[in-house]
Amino acid sequence: MSKKIEVCLTPALIDLYDIEQSIVVVIDILRATSSITYGIDNGAEAIIPVAHVEDCLKYSDSGFLLAAERNGEVVAGYDFGNSPFSYTPEKVGGKTVVLTTTNGTKALHLAQKRAHQVVIGSFLNLDTLCDYLKSQDKHVLLLCAGWKDQFNLEDTLFAGAVVNQLRQSFEHFDDSSVAAEDLYLLAKDDLRAYLRKSSHSHRLAQLNIEEDVVFCLQLNICKAIPVLNGESLVALKH
Amino acid sequence: MSKKIEVCLTPALIDLYDIEQSIVVVIDILRATSSITYGIDNGAEAIIPVAHVEDCLKYSDSGFLLAAERNGEVVAGYDFGNSPFSYTPEKVGGKTVVLTTTNGTKALHLAQKRAHQVVIGSFLNLDTLCDYLKSQDKHVLLLCAGWKDQFNLEDTLFAGAVVNQLRQSFEHFDDSSVAAEDLYLLAKDDLRAYLRKSSHSHRLAQLNIEEDVVFCLQLNICKAIPVLNGESLVALKH
Repeated sequence: MSKKIEVCLTPALIDLYDIEQSIVVVIDILRATSSITYGIDNGAEAIIPVAHVEDCLKYSDSGFLLAAERNGEVVAGYDFGNSPFSYTPEKVGGKTVVLTTTNGTKALHLAQKRAHQVVIGSFLNLDTLCDYLKSQDKHVLLLCAGWKDQFNLEDTLFAGAVVNQLRQSFEHFDDSSVAAEDLYLLAKDDLRAYLRKSSHSHRLAQLNIEEDVVFCLQLNICKAIPVLNGESLVALKH
Repeated sequence: MSKKIEVCLTPALIDLYDIEQSIVVVIDILRATSSITYGIDNGAEAIIPVAHVEDCLKYSDSGFLLAAERNGEVVAGYDFGNSPFSYTPEKVGGKTVVLTTTNGTKALHLAQKRAHQVVIGSFLNLDTLCDYLKSQDKHVLLLCAGWKDQFNLEDTLFAGAVVNQLRQSFEHFDDSSVAAEDLYLLAKDDLRAYLRKSSHSHRLAQLNIEEDVVFCLQLNICKAIPVLNGESLVALKH
């Protein structure tokens, strides 16, 4: 099979892609897919992504941990927020977590309808993810969750990092793959510095999550690949 | 007024932008907006963009020149195709041309509904366009026509060239502006070579329009800025 890589720069464009034979990698670097990767790697049994804080409520009697933030603060009555630092083995090991993530949930649900498989990518599991994608006889669509359906830099840079690793094993690349890879190559020596150019970074600065950003830009501290199974993200057995 | 620049990477994303106070620059480098710029610069009275070859037919008794291509060939019975080489003073001076361009027409019509003003950009009128945008007390949205609603490299590179010139005169830039500018800076020393990386370039090679591509990548051979006035593009008086 002649394998292709495509990069969908925002969930608003997903309908343009034929993904029945593709593994879709959902990317929401700050911070949903980084926290999910870290949580599953640290032994969370499952992570259930939901779009709105209110959606968590239906799980309130389930015994699950509930993660929800508004404006950078943990919502009163919830167990923790979206910081990856909440997803340690002590906190999530053996547990199911319900995680609120607007952009990430939208991207996951859109991909799930048609894709061969939906997995989670972040800088934290970059190498493991790329090895898996190389090993499968499927196309790859890298789906950037973006920011309210708009393009964002951090998700695109990660897509570019994946394209860069897969280049030798795939034959076809769309224009957005080419662009994402070149932006990654430009940024890779100091991802944090590059992202200071981002409009999103001003928003993030206001949320006071600098430590989270630095954490989410670490390479390869995790081996897990979360995969969507029904409504839950669980560890892919590979 | 604190001026912002935004880059809309495909017409499919236009609804995300608030453009009532923006000048929208429509960009379809290969080849619609290049041919339009060249035609207006060469004295065409007006150019009417239409989406489909069939849409030209309603102008068949108008005395207008009709431009339509299918698969790189001029459609039988039409005056010429979409090559900029058809838009010389001898051919278009004082005339009105009806031009078929699927991606470009879609972008123009979407922008027209809400924008303060809609103008045409191409490498051929880059400096004149940028001087105009600097002089106006309006935001700027650079609208890439893309390829069937997908991102393409050539339109994004041109958007980046504009961002690069406007950087000092504007205060706010979205993430796609940052990306477009960086891709342009990477490509600018040899735009043609850079575009060989594009998937679109394979399509173009099949159309046998290499001379057109080289022509469309020339900088600043035109002084005209086409502006949308009703359904027609005419020379902006500035």
